[in-house]
Parts: sequence; C-alpha cells; structure tokens
Amino acid sequence: VTVSPFDSAIWGGLFAAPTALAPFSDAAEIAAMVEVERALARAQGRCGVIPADAAAAIDRGLRAATVAPEALAAGTAAAGVPVPALVTALRAHLPPEAGHWLHWGATSQDIADSGLALRLGRALADFAAELDGLIGALAAASARWADLPMAGRTRSQIAAPTTFGHRVARWAQPLLALQVELEALRPRVARVQFGGAVGINAAVAPHGPAVIAALAEELDLAPSPPWHTDRSGLAALVGWCAQLAASLGKMAGDLILMGRTEIAEAGAGAGGGSSTMPQKANPVAAETILALARLAACLAAPMHLAALQQEERDGAAWSLEWLVLPQGVAAAGACLRLAAGLVASLRPDAARMAAGLAAGGGVAMAEAVSFRLAASLPRPEAETLVKAAAQAAAAGSESFAEALDRLAPAAADWREALDPAASTAAARMAVRATFERSGKP
Amino acid sequence: VTVSPFDSAIWGGLFAAPTALAPFSDAAEIAAMVEVERALARAQGRCGVIPADAAAAIDRGLRAATVAPEALAAGTAAAGVPVPALVTALRAHLPPEAGHWLHWGATSQDIADSGLALRLGRALADFAAELDGLIGALAAASARWADLPMAGRTRSQIAAPTTFGHRVARWAQPLLALQVELEALRPRVARVQFGGAVGINAAVAPHGPAVIAALAEELDLAPSPPWHTDRSGLAALVGWCAQLAASLGKMAGDLILMGRTEIAEAGAGAGGGSSTMPQKANPVAAETILALARLAACLAAPMHLAALQQEERDGAAWSLEWLVLPQGVAAAGACLRLAAGLVASLRPDAARMAAGLAAGGGVAMAEAVSFRLAASLPRPEAETLVKAAAQAAAAGSESFAEALDRLAPAAADWREALDPAASTAAARMAVRATFERSGKP
Amino acid sequence: VTVSPFDSAIWGGLFAAPTALAPFSDAAEIAAMVEVERALARAQGRCGVIPADAAAAIDRGLRAATVAPEALAAGTAAAGVPVPALVTALRAHLPPEAGHWLHWGATSQDIADSGLALRLGRALADFAAELDGLIGALAAASARWADLPMAGRTRSQIAAPTTFGHRVARWAQPLLALQVELEALRPRVARVQFGGAVGINAAVAPHGPAVIAALAEELDLAPSPPWHTDRSGLAALVGWCAQLAASLGKMAGDLILMGRTEIAEAGAGAGGGSSTMPQKANPVAAETILALARLAACLAAPMHLAALQQEERDGAAWSLEWLVLPQGVAAAGACLRLAAGLVASLRPDAARMAAGLAAGGGVAMAEAVSFRLAASLPRPEAETLVKAAAQAAAAGSESFAEALDRLAPAAADWREALDPAASTAAARMAVRATFERSGKP
Amino acid sequence: VTVSPFDSAIWGGLFAAPTALAPFSDAAEIAAMVEVERALARAQGRCGVIPADAAAAIDRGLRAATVAPEALAAGTAAAGVPVPALVTALRAHLPPEAGHWLHWGATSQDIADSGLALRLGRALADFAAELDGLIGALAAASARWADLPMAGRTRSQIAAPTTFGHRVARWAQPLLALQVELEALRPRVARVQFGGAVGINAAVAPHGPAVIAALAEELDLAPSPPWHTDRSGLAALVGWCAQLAASLGKMAGDLILMGRTEIAEAGAGAGGGSSTMPQKANPVAAETILALARLAACLAAPMHLAALQQEERDGAAWSLEWLVLPQGVAAAGACLRLAAGLVASLRPDAARMAAGLAAGGGVAMAEAVSFRLAASLPRPEAETLVKAAAQAAAAGSESFAEALDRLAPAAADWREALDPAASTAAARMAVRATFERSGKP
Repeated sequence: VTVSPFDSAIWGGLFAAPTALAPFSDAAEIAAMVEVERALARAQGRCGVIPADAAAAIDRGLRAATVAPEALAAGTAAAGVPVPALVTALRAHLPPEAGHWLHWGATSQDIADSGLALRLGRALADFAAELDGLIGALAAASARWADLPMAGRTRSQIAAPTTFGHRVARWAQPLLALQVELEALRPRVARVQFGGAVGINAAVAPHGPAVIAALAEELDLAPSPPWHTDRSGLAALVGWCAQLAASLGKMAGDLILMGRTEIAEAGAGAGGGSSTMPQKANPVAAETILALARLAACLAAPMHLAALQQEERDGAAWSLEWLVLPQGVAAAGACLRLAAGLVASLRPDAARMAAGLAAGGGVAMAEAVSFRLAASLPRPEAETLVKAAAQAAAAGSESFAEALDRLAPAAADWREALDPAASTAAARMAVRATFERSGKP
Repeated sequence: VTVSPFDSAIWGGLFAAPTALAPFSDAAEIAAMVEVERALARAQGRCGVIPADAAAAIDRGLRAATVAPEALAAGTAAAGVPVPALVTALRAHLPPEAGHWLHWGATSQDIADSGLALRLGRALADFAAELDGLIGALAAASARWADLPMAGRTRSQIAAPTTFGHRVARWAQPLLALQVELEALRPRVARVQFGGAVGINAAVAPHGPAVIAALAEELDLAPSPPWHTDRSGLAALVGWCAQLAASLGKMAGDLILMGRTEIAEAGAGAGGGSSTMPQKANPVAAETILALARLAACLAAPMHLAALQQEERDGAAWSLEWLVLPQGVAAAGACLRLAAGLVASLRPDAARMAAGLAAGGGVAMAEAVSFRLAASLPRPEAETLVKAAAQAAAAGSESFAEALDRLAPAAADWREALDPAASTAAARMAVRATFERSGKP
Repeated sequence: VTVSPFDSAIWGGLFAAPTALAPFSDAAEIAAMVEVERALARAQGRCGVIPADAAAAIDRGLRAATVAPEALAAGTAAAGVPVPALVTALRAHLPPEAGHWLHWGATSQDIADSGLALRLGRALADFAAELDGLIGALAAASARWADLPMAGRTRSQIAAPTTFGHRVARWAQPLLALQVELEALRPRVARVQFGGAVGINAAVAPHGPAVIAALAEELDLAPSPPWHTDRSGLAALVGWCAQLAASLGKMAGDLILMGRTEIAEAGAGAGGGSSTMPQKANPVAAETILALARLAACLAAPMHLAALQQEERDGAAWSLEWLVLPQGVAAAGACLRLAAGLVASLRPDAARMAAGLAAGGGVAMAEAVSFRLAASLPRPEAETLVKAAAQAAAAGSESFAEALDRLAPAAADWREALDPAASTAAARMAVRATFERSGKP
Repeated sequence: VTVSPFDSAIWGGLFAAPTALAPFSDAAEIAAMVEVERALARAQGRCGVIPADAAAAIDRGLRAATVAPEALAAGTAAAGVPVPALVTALRAHLPPEAGHWLHWGATSQDIADSGLALRLGRALADFAAELDGLIGALAAASARWADLPMAGRTRSQIAAPTTFGHRVARWAQPLLALQVELEALRPRVARVQFGGAVGINAAVAPHGPAVIAALAEELDLAPSPPWHTDRSGLAALVGWCAQLAASLGKMAGDLILMGRTEIAEAGAGAGGGSSTMPQKANPVAAETILALARLAACLAAPMHLAALQQEERDGAAWSLEWLVLPQGVAAAGACLRLAAGLVASLRPDAARMAAGLAAGGGVAMAEAVSFRLAASLPRPEAETLVKAAAQAAAAGSESFAEALDRLAPAAADWREALDPAASTAAARMAVRATFERSGKP
C-alpha cells in the first residue's frame, strides 16, 4: 500500500530521498531496537545491574537476530507499540537464563525512543553533509554569477537591478543559520532514552544515572535525563525540517518564476513533458520542492501538538509523532536532494536577464534615477518626476529615458544612473557579506 | 519503505483500515487510470470524436492490460505525473492505429483526476456504509443505557447527573450531520474530469460537453465542468474526514477518561499490555483514534493550501494533494474501523458510575438542590447556600447531605433532589431527541 | 492593543471587512447574550416554565440594559466565560422577583453559544449576499471577455490558448459550489443552544424540548438538540471560510502573475506605492487576499482540534474556538471585500495577451498543431515533430511557424492551427457550461 | 473591534499578558519605526552617507514626533505597508533640507523589520526573565515535594509510584532546553534590517556594510546581512513559542487531570465558578493554557509558510507574518503568565495521592513486585503471576496483596516491594539529575 508518495514505486523517484527514508523502513526500526536492547545489556553488565555473563549472552545472542516485521504485527496492534512483542521474539533467540535479564528495568518507550534517536542521529549526519555540500555549491554559484545583472523583483514588480549571484546568495542565507541550528539540535534529538516505567528508573535504583551514562556511551548518543514526556527536541527537529524546506522552497519558487516561458531568465534541471502539449518543459523538481515545503510547514503543527503529553507517558501524543515525524524528515531530505540537482544545473540566460532589465521601458532604474535627481532636487520632487516618467514608459508611449529627457531639469545628470551595471559592485559586496563567516568561497 | 505507519507491516494492524487504504495502492492507481482511458475511448467513440472501431480496439485491448508501477517510475520522476509514461506503456498493448486515438484530447490531469474520483467514490461508498453501521450501533447503545445514571462532567469537574446512554447519544450527534454532509459531498468528489490542455477541450471542439457527459456515464461519476483548478471538493472531503475523526476522537477521549484506573466507569476494546508493568490494560484503540484525529485536523490546512492553484494548472499545488489527501482518507477510515470496535465492546460499570455520582460527597446534585431550594429562597441565596455545603463536602468533614441539613432552612424540601435518578427521564428524552429524525431506534 | 491587524487602526483598512468584524466586537458579544437571556425568558414564559409576569419583566427590564465590557473583565478572568458576571450584572437591572427567574435552567454555554449563533447567522447572511454579488460580477466579466484570447498556462509554462473570460469563469467555479454549501451550513451554525448543566435540561424537565423549540422561534435560529460538545458545525464554517479564501486566493494569485511588469496582461485595483521605488504599483489587494487565504487554510486545523471535546463540556477546547473562529470569519469577509474590488476593476490588456500568445515563438499553438498533424501522421510522430519545432522556436533561431515549415511533411495543413482564435469558441462554450445552472448571465 | 480575545476588554484578563502584548500596539509599532528612522539618520551621518547636520536635525526633530495610527490608515491600505505614509508624516515634522535626507536609501521593509526586531528583542528579554523565574519556581517546587509519593500514570493508567516533585521536575525539563534555545534565537530575531530596494544597498553604495554595522550599534541589535527574504529567524521564534506553550500545556493538562473531582490530588490557582452549578471550581487558567498551546502549535504552520518568499521581497508572504507572529508571541506570553500563577499556588494533597496509589487494589506496585519475584522466578513467569494478581485486585474480589499471597510461591519476598516509598529515592535522584546543569536548586 502506498498512502504516501514517499513510499510508492510509481512516485518515489520524484518524492523520495533514499538517505532520508532509510531510517523509516520496518527493518531499520527493528534493527535499531535490537541494537538498543543489546547495548542496554552491555551497559547494565558494566554497571553491575545484570550479571556480566548474561549481558554477554544477550549481546552475542542478538547479534544476528532478525525479526520479521509481520511477526510483530499482532503484538503491535494489541499493545500499541511493538516492543512487548519484540522482547518476546528476542527471548526466543536466547537461553532462558539470558532472556531473563533482557530488557531489564526498561519500558517500551526506552527502547523505541532510543532506537529512534539512533536512526535520527544518522539521518542528521547525512543532512549535515548534504547541507554543507549544497551551501558550498550555492556559494560557488553566487561567486560565479556575482556580476551578472538582472532585475530584482519586489512584490512581484520589477524593482531595481541586482545580480543573479546575489539572488543565489540569498537562497543560501537561511541555510547558513540552519547549519548552526542543526549542530545545536543534534544532542536534543540523538540522545539516549532510559527511564523505566515512570521515568525514575526505580527498577534499577540506585543505578539509573549510571546506566543512562553507560547506555549513551554504548550507543554513541548524547546522555539525557529521560525524555518520555519532553518531546521538545523532536518538535524542534520537525521545525528545522520545515525551515529547511521553506528555504529551499524559496529557491524553487524563484526558479519556477525565472523559468516561465515569458521570462525565461534561468533554467535548472530537466523539464518535464506533457501528455498532450509537445512543447512543455515543466519545472517538475522545483514544483515538488514547493509542495514538500508546504507539507513540511504544516507538519510542524501536529508535531508541536504531540509535545502536549499527559502525565508520565501519553499513548495518544506519542503515536501522533509516528504519523508526523517521518514525513517531516523525508520531506526535508527530498528537498535537499532535489535542490542539489537544481543548483548543479543552474542555467542563467544573460540576454533574457538584460531583457528583464529593459522591461516596462527600463523602469528598473527608477530608484537609481530618483537618487541621482535628488542631488539637485528635493527628494519628494525627484520621486514625483520619476514616477511620471515611469508611468509614461509603462504606458508604452515613450521609453523611460525619453520621458526623463522630457521631464527632468536640464542640469540633472541622471544618464549614468540608467546603467544597471552601477549596481553590480553593491551586489558583489552583498554576496561576500552573506558568506563572510561561513568559510565558503 | 514505511514512512507512514499506515503502510507498515509492523504498525498497519493498528493504524490502517484496509477499505480506506485500498484506493491508494500503486496498483489501484494504475488500474483506475486504465479504466479511465478505456472509458474515454468508449465515450469518444459514442460521440464520434474518434472512430468507433478504434474505440472498441482500445477498450478491448486494455481490458487486461497491466502495467507494473516500477515501469512508470522514471517517467513519473521526469514528468511529475505518471500519465505520459502510462500512455506510452498502454500504446504498446495496442495496434498502432488504435494507439493513435488513445488519450485523445486529454491532458494528464484528466486521467489522473478522473481515476482519483473513481477511487474516492468507492471509498466514500464504504464510508457511508460504515458510518451508517456505526450510528446504528451508537443508537442501540444509547437506547440500551439511556437510564443508566452517571455523573456528567463539565470542564473536567463533576457537574450534574446524566446517563451513560445520553453520553453515547452525544457521540452520535455530529455523525448524523456528517452523514448528511457526505451525501452532498459525493458529487463534488466523485465527478468526472475532462478538460484537455487548458480546460476548454479545444482539441475535441465542439464536442467537449458531449464527451464530458458520456465519460461521466461510462464511469458512473457525476458530470462536471473541468475542475483542474477548482479543488474545493477535495478540500471539503479532507475537511469532512477531519470532522469525522474529531467526532470519533471525542468518543475516544471520553473512553480514555472513563477507563482510567481511578475512574473505571467504562471499558471498551481489549487493553494493551506493557513491556514492564504486568497490570496495564492500555486504551490503545482509543489513543490511536485520538492521534489520527489530531493528524486529520492538521491535514485540513495543507489541503486548503492545495486549492490555492495558479493559472490553468499548478504542478506544485497539485502534488501537494497527493501528499495529504490519502492520509486524510486513511485516517478517517482507520478511525471508523477502530470506533466500530470500541462501540461493539462498550462495557459500562454501573457500580463505578454510582461511585462517581457520590464523589466529592455527592456534589453532582448541587444544581438540582439549588433549584429545589430556589422554590423557597431567592436564587442567589440558594446558590450561596449550596456552594457552602458543597465546599464542606469537598473538604470531607461532612457529606453534602449533612451539610445541607445543617445549612438549609427547615422548610426546604431538597432531599428528593439528591436522587440522581430524577434526571434519568430528562436524559432519556434528550437521547430520543438526538436520533429523532435519523430513522435509528 | 492590536495583536491582530484586523483590529488595528493602522492596518484595518487593508485587512478588515466591517461586516465580517461587526459580530466580534465586545459590545456585539454582550448585546447578543442579552438578547438571548431576554428571548429565553419569553420562551420559558410561553412554556410555563417561569411565571409569565417574570418573563415580561425580564424582557422589558433588559431591553435597554447595557453592560460595559470592562465590567465583565474580572468575572471572565475568574470563570473563564463572561456569563456568570453578565447574569449578576443583569440582575442588577431587574427587580429581585424577576431576577430570580433570569437565566433559569441555563448554563453559561447556552447563552454564549446561542449568542454566537445569532451573530454568525447575521454574518452568514451578509456573506451570502456578498458572494452572490461577486459571482454575478464574475459571470458578467467572463461573458464580457469570453472571446478575448490569451495564453493559458499550466505548470507555469505557456500551454495553449484560452480566453480571459474563461479564466474568469474558472475563478467563479468553486464559488458556485460554496454558495450551495453555505445554504446547507446555515442551520448547522445559526442554531439554538439550550441544554442546561450537562445537556439534558434536567432543571426544566420535562419542558426541555419545548423550551428549545420556543427559544429557536424567539431568536429565529434553527432548532437543535444541545450541541455543547458537537462542534462540527463551527468547524465546517471555518472550513467553508478557508475554501472561500482559497478560491479567491486563486484569483488573487493569477492577478499577481498577470500584473507582473514583464507580463502585464491584466491589472486590477490601484497599485501600491513604494517608499523608495517611484515606479512601483504593487498588487496590494491581491497579496492581502493571498495572505488571508493562507491564514484561513491554517486556521482550519485548530478549529478541527477544538471539536475534540471531552465529556459534557470542555473548557480548553471551547476557548480554543474563540481564538480561531473570529479570525477565520474575518479573513473570509476581508477576502470577499477585496475580491469585489478587484473584480470591479479588472483591466485586461488585449495587446499584452497577444504578446503572451506569441511568447517563445508562438509555442502556445503546439498542441493544436500536433493534433492537426495527427490527421496525417501517427500521433507520436506528430508530437515528436512539434516538440522539435518548439525547441527550435524557444532557442530563438527561427519562429515556431518557420520550424514547422522546415520539419513538417509538405501535405500537412497546420497553418490554420496556428491561429489562437480557433480556440475561442471552445472557451466560450466552457464559460457557458460553468454558469449553466447558476442563473447568472 | 476584538477579533482576538487577546485584545478584548471582556476577555483580555484571561488571555492576555501585558508584557507580551506591549510590542503589538499601534503606538508601539509607530514608535519603533520612528526610532529606526532616527537611528538610521545617526548611523548614516556617522558613515558620511548623509550630512552630519541633517542627521542631527532628523534625530532631534523626530525625538518627540508622534503620529496617530489613524493618520496612517489610508496610506497603509494603499501601499500595503505604513512606511510610505509614515515617512511623509515625519517629513512634516522636519525642515525640508532635513526631510530630504530622511529614510535615505531605505526601503519600507528595512524600517518595518528593524522596528519589529526592536520590539521583539524587548519581548524576548522579558520572556527570558519570566522563563528563568518559572524554572526557578519549578525547581523549588520539585525539591520541596521530591519525596511526596504519588501514582505515576502512563497511557492514562496507574503505572508505578513516582513523587510529585518528580512530576514537577519533568514539567521543567523542556523549559531548560528552551532557555538555551532562546539565547541562540535572540540574534536571529533581534537583528538589524537594512538592504534598500532589493537588498544590495545600491543607493548608499559602497557604504552598505558600514551603515548596517552602525545602525545595528545605534539600535543595539545584532548586525546581519539584509534578511528581506530570509525569514527563518521569525519562523524559529514562533516555533519556540509553540514549544514553550506546549511545554506549559503539558503541565496544564496534568493539573486538569489532578484537579478532577474524582482524583483531586492537586489544586492550583483559583477555581472558576459556574452560572448554574454552585459547586464548580473549574481549572480555568490551566484550560486557557491548553487552548493557547494548541493555537501556538497551529500557528507554526503559517509562519513556516511565510518563509516561502518570492524573489527580492514578497508582499503576500510578508503580510502573512503580521497575521501570525503577534498571536504566537502573545500566546506564549500568556502561557508564561498563567503558568507562573499556577506554579505559585500548587497545592498537592498527600492523602489523595496515597489514595491514588491504593487505587485498583494497589496495582501501582505491580512492576516492583514483579521485579522482586523475578529474583526467584523466571521473569515471564513472574509477570504472568503478577498480572493475574492485578486482575483479581481490579475485579475487586480481593486486594492486590491478598491475591499475591494466594498466588506467589511461599519463598518470595515481595512484601517490601508493596511499599511505594521504596521508589522515593529513585525519584529524588531523577529530580536532581534534571536540574543538574541548570544552576537551580
């Protein structure tokens, strides 16, 4: 069944990123929980909570243990969590005297959450690497095209000149902040969970803190007090995914606009074909990023709701996480993959960009002209004059330059201001400032 | 991969409802689109848009055509939609002179949306039947226990007596409205889509309206102008799913409270076990409904966003639907399945309900007593007196009745008012009024 | 304080629609509740639940009663609802023997919800009128410009010819469905609430049903069993608001694209100025609609959550409604107001639309040409040929027509297919079909 | 008008926190923008971008300038942003030669966003102080009641003993993480915005970077490249607000459960009265927190959407922020205020907590007993035995202890395990570990 395009054989090539999905297979889920049970035995053996030979027997006995997902189905439907059925299944792999000490003092959530932390920790490492690569590619692209003039647009109108490199730098800007945030986020997510029935580790008292520390070491996770009901780290992770997806969605949206037939200032990726219109080259990858970004944005809401736990553990809030978190991570991962493809294939078209700067009779230069005129006129007067010239140009009766000739005081030296290249140096500076502290070119 | 618990072999038994998932398999998606292509050929043959023998050849040639999902993966990733690849694959099943007329004048969205409408139409029929069954079961349960007294709670406090049957009737109340809404919704969802490239059927002009009508007949879908950009029906469907899930979530939340160890007024379903606490009987099904209801609520947002289309077709908004709609339907279906199980196994405990009515010294009767006292006292005075008695009872120093004895004027006849059974008739009346126009017992 | 732009003296002119906000002033809230208390007295007088002269005294005594919002502040903060403080304040307007019978058998929620229903009922009547006016204006506009050719765009690419009137008709299409839905919604929202403490009207037994019926008559609201915990009607209302806003947001998004400096195919409304760019004419109204539509979409989620009530009344879920519902209604109302302004000032530019049809060398005609070629070539061959011609045209080396001349078989008669006007009749038909059953021109 | 309860004279005492609302008054908005214009003049004077005497004249001339919100209404409705109208209004306060240099090289968004950053920076400082106080109060409460035994509940069932102090410590746990996150967030939010028309500061080239640095100093904001289109900081802020609200909502939900009439293990705050039930003491403050937490959770979604900007500035995405961000901040602030009141008035009831531990025949001890029995029995056997005893106790036929007596092997020493106090030391340890690195008691 494929209720989600992420999982579909038809759709997966579009929506799925293998690295971001890897943590969420049934097999990966089981494997991580087995890994946690083994590490727990080793940790408790080290702390003297269970006999050392039992610990060794568990560790060894489960090394190659495989449990089929289907074998956990009935138990999961009954208990609302696969751990009781998994523990029973794993005991069958062990001699009874070792099975006795398996899962000692743990509650289901300890195993499920530590397993999740393991899987997410690996996903975050992948994200960190992919994000760094993407930022590097954007930095290189923005440097390469720092001087390529194009019309900046604000509120959907042609505004004033910028360069393509500057627009690219702005795509990278939030990513730089998210890179820092990711580092802060990791220990909030990839952290050990061990609290026992109600979070005080009564069954292993007074060794709770020691077991937590040892288990964290065994799993290479950050140590943490039990977070059975503190889901802020997971909510922050989905928030980060939404921010990442929105940042890449901004780029995607720009590329869709730049790739419109009438604008055609830049292409990226391969265009998608139509079943009836032979000419179409649809911006499929960018559209997919946008869709994923909107999904990720909306997933932040239920993930925050899932943090509204009750008492010592909340089955309803907990299971909401499983319905939301994987999608959020998968969406962010897919955005990263698709964005990398777009950035690698950016194709700005200098001639079309020049045409954009000339659109509407060249009104992209209106601000520059008004500042130049303001050298000799009060600024409100300069603006009124430029506005009149721009309207004449937009109406098409004369060009912006001609209208200025007609309207401006003879002494005004505004002709140089009509050259968009005058803005290039400012754009280049702004590109440099964006990456200043990033270590990127 | 199992980014969604709906699709997981481990979790599916808990989260999935087979009927609600059936429409969303890769195979079902392909089968529906093939069904649409065949029906389109028949319809166009009838209208004289394509040759009758080509229509017959397409219909016959594709009757047994199967296309593997994997065969569409590359084409879908390229085009953002599987239809171009599917048309190519289907042409391979046909003689060239028939393949020529396949998909005539259709755009990808016509095929994908009509196929979706087919699949959703079937799901809605299932929903209608399941919902009717559930309402019937609730009507029967509310009639059965219409006279079983229990403490009503408002704002989490014991408020005044009601009966268990009345609470059950209130669970059914929104479902009755949703049943009516579902009928109105069906033709907005299960409707034909045929508009061609930009929605005006230029390629088959002037036969567009005739083809739409014929295709609707062939597919047993409602006729409709092209709805390429009118996604209000699908948004309304997900809204309906969210309303349904919330209505059942209300019941689930009540059952979780009623099943708390300290309250234990009613059970439902089989309790889930724990991996460490032998006594646990967790309300797994009810918790799952609650989680699904919160998910469904939050999915309404991106589905409304997906209606924010651009121009004649919007790839980003369209693909957002695929990420949201199936989950919404799956969640509603799973809630229906789980709720049916809970209602079928309702186990009220009359003794515990009586204990609830006696909790806090019997303050559930405070309102009734105050109205009785108001027969002889101004109402504010009556309320002040009852409040003092209730506080004494809550403090545990004396029972509510004793405190009233001490505080009330001798003449007041409030003792009868202390019998919760006095409210039973009112509750029974309210139960009846709830189902009055429903045709249920 | 102005936590919401709807309420701000600075921003209100942009975001607020007076009719949609009117129900939500403090004064309107109090007035509606007073109206309900008076009507309740009259209804209970008619049913013999309270003495007729007390009923008359309450009705008369509260006719001119005003209560300042500030006077309810402390009581509201204490009780979580203003009704207890309001009842106390109203008693001060009445002789004690009448005050005794005020609010008889009612719970706070009966008064607050019936008052809300009154206010919303009036807002829905306004919405119905405004929506009807808007649909009429769109119908007129689509008829007026049914034959004005423009390039249809799908997935952001120029696709095939349509007409401006057809695009306008598509804007109206979801509104026609929403008009029907609004009628079905009204009795689910504008309905009486009277259930007493726990919804069974025990305090007025056995007159509960009679009082409900009489109160509904007095207030001109639909009769209803108590809906203390059935919030599906309010959730459906916010869903409707979100659908409406999204439908208008679709139009707004199209107008923003059509108004881009480089496209300039249509204007609407007055453009907004900039503080530094004299030429700017920003599409402020359309942007505002889009922002409101996204807000309304996202408000659907918490409104569905608010339907997740507990037991006989849920203070947390209930107060969530107050934080969400008014915004949803206000957003829909503002969208209606702004949309009316845009539609009234639509300014298509036929010359720019013709330029759009010529963009990319005229590839808007590619589908039409491919169908024409398919008269003499197998369709896949026709499509391959047209694709090659379109790519040559996009590259700018020759026009689409020239490329076709070079590539097509001599016998092919595709020249007529290059005239976009050939699609006009199909577009006009599609316009007519859209409004067919609407009674609009 | 009061579309939001935050702004209402009736409701404000419940929903509003004065400190969190202060930034969002019309007056505060204008004052902050005036502050930015003055600081910009000073900064540009320092950098030699405008004449020093003009800078001084602007700074001095606007020191006492007040602009009425109403005076900006028409201009805001026209431009979609109040800055153009504000600049015009401020020029009227200045001699023409100073007015000429006002707002030099700035775009509206520079002024609006820097003003917002100023206001938010102050709100965040308030939040930091209030949060620190709340954590301190929770640390003190958890220390005070670290040894007060109560039944821990998981998945709504009585699970195993914990202490009230431990539950309180868990309330604080996410707040400790949020305190760290807040520090990281501040420079992402309280940062200067100065980019000019399209973000490259062309109008003041090559002084852009110097002006940014000087303006940051003047306003005591963090320096930053222009973030016209990088809204990740604001999205992160609303995410933080949602996390904070959810964390406090967890506490509120627990308090609602603990304050139920049948449980009554703890009170907090003053109970709210009812208009018809004299005994009611509704948990109004806790319910309000829960409602606000759900609102804040859902506001994260549109705030992430608002980060989906287009090109160099996006009017639709920008205005969405204004509709969302203030509410998010206001909700978090109100939660902090209400939570402080609840924590200050916590009233645990040791006797009722003991009753909770005894509920269901004392099954809270089942896990402890099973571990004790596991000293002499294989663990699965121990669990089976305990489960049977627990079921007997739940059925009420005998107590848990009696059932164990009957079922357990003679040699088993499980009686000590029936004392909940055995868990107290573990709970105390867990409390200490929670606050270990926080510097709180």
